[in-house]
Amino acid sequence: MEFLVRFEVDAPASMTADERERLRGLERVRAMELREQGILRHLWRVPGRRAVIGLWEAPDATVLHDALASLPMFPWMDVTVEALATHPQEMK
Amino acid sequence: MEFLVRFEVDAPASMTADERERLRGLERVRAMELREQGILRHLWRVPGRRAVIGLWEAPDATVLHDALASLPMFPWMDVTVEALATHPQEMK
Amino acid sequence: MEFLVRFEVDAPASMTADERERLRGLERVRAMELREQGILRHLWRVPGRRAVIGLWEAPDATVLHDALASLPMFPWMDVTVEALATHPQEMK
Amino acid sequence: MEFLVRFEVDAPASMTADERERLRGLERVRAMELREQGILRHLWRVPGRRAVIGLWEAPDATVLHDALASLPMFPWMDVTVEALATHPQEMK
Amino acid sequence: MEFLVRFEVDAPASMTADERERLRGLERVRAMELREQGILRHLWRVPGRRAVIGLWEAPDATVLHDALASLPMFPWMDVTVEALATHPQEMK
Amino acid sequence: MEFLVRFEVDAPASMTADERERLRGLERVRAMELREQGILRHLWRVPGRRAVIGLWEAPDATVLHDALASLPMFPWMDVTVEALATHPQEMK
Amino acid sequence: MEFLVRFEVDAPASMTADERERLRGLERVRAMELREQGILRHLWRVPGRRAVIGLWEAPDATVLHDALASLPMFPWMDVTVEALATHPQEMK
Amino acid sequence: MEFLVRFEVDAPASMTADERERLRGLERVRAMELREQGILRHLWRVPGRRAVIGLWEAPDATVLHDALASLPMFPWMDVTVEALATHPQEMK
Amino acid sequence: MEFLVRFEVDAPASMTADERERLRGLERVRAMELREQGILRHLWRVPGRRAVIGLWEAPDATVLHDALASLPMFPWMDVTVEALATHPQEMK
Amino acid sequence: MEFLVRFEVDAPASMTADERERLRGLERVRAMELREQGILRHLWRVPGRRAVIGLWEAPDATVLHDALASLPMFPWMDVTVEALATHPQEMK
Repeated sequence: MEFLVRFEVDAPASMTADERERLRGLERVRAMELREQGILRHLWRVPGRRAVIGLWEAPDATVLHDALASLPMFPWMDVTVEALATHPQEMK
Repeated sequence: MEFLVRFEVDAPASMTADERERLRGLERVRAMELREQGILRHLWRVPGRRAVIGLWEAPDATVLHDALASLPMFPWMDVTVEALATHPQEMK
Repeated sequence: MEFLVRFEVDAPASMTADERERLRGLERVRAMELREQGILRHLWRVPGRRAVIGLWEAPDATVLHDALASLPMFPWMDVTVEALATHPQEMK
Repeated sequence: MEFLVRFEVDAPASMTADERERLRGLERVRAMELREQGILRHLWRVPGRRAVIGLWEAPDATVLHDALASLPMFPWMDVTVEALATHPQEMK
Repeated sequence: MEFLVRFEVDAPASMTADERERLRGLERVRAMELREQGILRHLWRVPGRRAVIGLWEAPDATVLHDALASLPMFPWMDVTVEALATHPQEMK
Repeated sequence: MEFLVRFEVDAPASMTADERERLRGLERVRAMELREQGILRHLWRVPGRRAVIGLWEAPDATVLHDALASLPMFPWMDVTVEALATHPQEMK
Repeated sequence: MEFLVRFEVDAPASMTADERERLRGLERVRAMELREQGILRHLWRVPGRRAVIGLWEAPDATVLHDALASLPMFPWMDVTVEALATHPQEMK
Repeated sequence: MEFLVRFEVDAPASMTADERERLRGLERVRAMELREQGILRHLWRVPGRRAVIGLWEAPDATVLHDALASLPMFPWMDVTVEALATHPQEMK
Repeated sequence: MEFLVRFEVDAPASMTADERERLRGLERVRAMELREQGILRHLWRVPGRRAVIGLWEAPDATVLHDALASLPMFPWMDVTVEALATHPQEMK
Repeated sequence: MEFLVRFEVDAPASMTADERERLRGLERVRAMELREQGILRHLWRVPGRRAVIGLWEAPDATVLHDALASLPMFPWMDVTVEALATHPQEMK
């Protein structure tokens, strides 16, 4: 099942540039793993914002939640999830 | 997977009382079938409104959509669907 | 009477991981007690968020408030309560 | 249990002035009965609007819904209900 | 003239439990005085929140503002005021 | 006591231009009377809209409501009222 | 450039079932053409609603508008367009 | 003084295609006149909508209102106006 | 040209009572100057809030912005400006 | 392709006046470069706010995002981007 996931990262002002860079590196690694598992399908950036729109695929919302919560930046992410149904034109 | 579904029925003023009553009967019958299939789990009424909150269970949002669209009042229903994840305390 | 209760926990950044873990443990214990008293009926997690949707049952909103306020995380919870009426199809 | 109920009446343009007057009369009669039963406690008018704020008392939201739905203008009322808890200063 | 006043208290995290308790005591004393003056008529608690709905009576919004601003917790209160008109059914 | 009143007129499409013109004439006459009584103090137009912002003065919200409801266009007006307190700098 | 386009169809009640079916057929044909031109990339259905989320690709918003306006149901569609930037992880 | 003006046209379903076309022609003529007078400076289309964003220049909001109200489609336009100040970087 | 300006002051918790008092004094002085220049015409207090509604008059939004930005509390003010057109009934 | 970009700067209270001034200087320099590259076309100030509305032109949203992110104040800017289509009256 597919989900449209929108999140915006709001790292605290107290986080050092080093820590932020380190977390971004871990974030890329974890995202890569989730792509390989087929859970994370595509990311887009919302222009002008520290926000990301993503297309995710998971058997259910519990698996999706665990995948999102495994992102190193998760504690500073504001996330909204929208369940998607397959459009008749996309069915084969 | 569980979904919290909120809908509000807004039958057109032009619908006769008879037609409305007939549709309500069909609605009850269809709801009963969806309960027997385990898709519709529970309904609550929002006090003061022609609105209903329901707990639904379906393998994915496509099956859920088909179940909702099979309701005789669907053309006059404003529906919002919220995907639910299992809470850790509910896992056995 | 049933209530749909949505809450989101926003622990302050200054709270240590230890304190947070300790509070979560107390939270689970208190939730268990409220389940045994029949006040807390079911919890769901909102995917991607530190938010929970719960079905609660209490004789009135005052008892419900006291139950919610007894949760150890209450000072950091943003809570909204929606009163539910019984749907005719659920009446026996 | 007390409820704060806000409703706004939007009678259809097609309703004649006579019908509207007749319904208002029935509305007053029904409101009087609900006051005598102790369900309707007080009404206020929102200045400038066809809107009313009311204080209602009912054992639960199901009884409240039935009381609201018994009002002759109910089919044209947009209603929102807010559950109220007793404030500690009001307890004797 | 009556007013429906909704306020939510958001004491700063830096406030000590002692200071909070002391302010709550002063708040109760001041509320009692305002009740005796007939300005504060009734308070309800919004379940699950540090929010209060109150029915107030004052000759005008300036007197009401002064009464609200005299509450010891006022600096941390988010207040909204709604002017109420008398409903025809309440007129004697 | 002063009130800031915002209203927007939405005459039904079925109203003839003649009827609209006639109502506008009556509206001007009634507004003039309310000005003479000191209830209507000033009107501004919201640019680009059939909306008006007005400064009104009345002993309370009930008198204000009656003044607004006496406007010939009232049945087609969407009105919001905001109670105003006197600013300390305006006190003499 | 990619766009996330959300639209909801609200055919007028006066439209006959035949006309609606005919338009849906034309809609499918036109969507197929836009897919072949590479403008329409993917559609998803919002569960429970007559709403569709689509991923579109066009050189600019003017070409996108023309593509959307060429859909036979366009006069009854409420459309919102969100410009998407490429996420660094998607760059090759 | 400059204004950012956003409007959306919602012609009634009862308007014939001929009447709509005729009005659009008049609209273009009137827009041209307002451009020549220097009141209408630029229009953009909001992709996917019957909405337009415009940059207007007028000595004040009253002149702007009169210009907007002179558009043949004005009775069916929902307009919002935002006053703009000159940015220091644009001052010469 | 007239403007309806709404602002709410949110002084930081770190500001001392002395500093706040000093700023309020400066604020009154500056407001007096703006009144003498005919830019600030009237202020009202929103009851229950640290918010003010004001009627301002300035040749354009740039002059208005400079007047607002000259207020000593401006760095802590959340301001919204609404352009006002003259109502036909106010024209002489 | 044109974009309407609205941003509001919210520099942290901890930033010194010197640092703020230094950043504003860098901001002007960078804005000038973006103007010379034809990406930044015009800026307006929203009266009463630390907010700016800008007209930008870029081949796509990715280039626009990079331009916005290159502004020295970007970490403290809340930005919303609206894609603009060319209006038929502006086409030559």
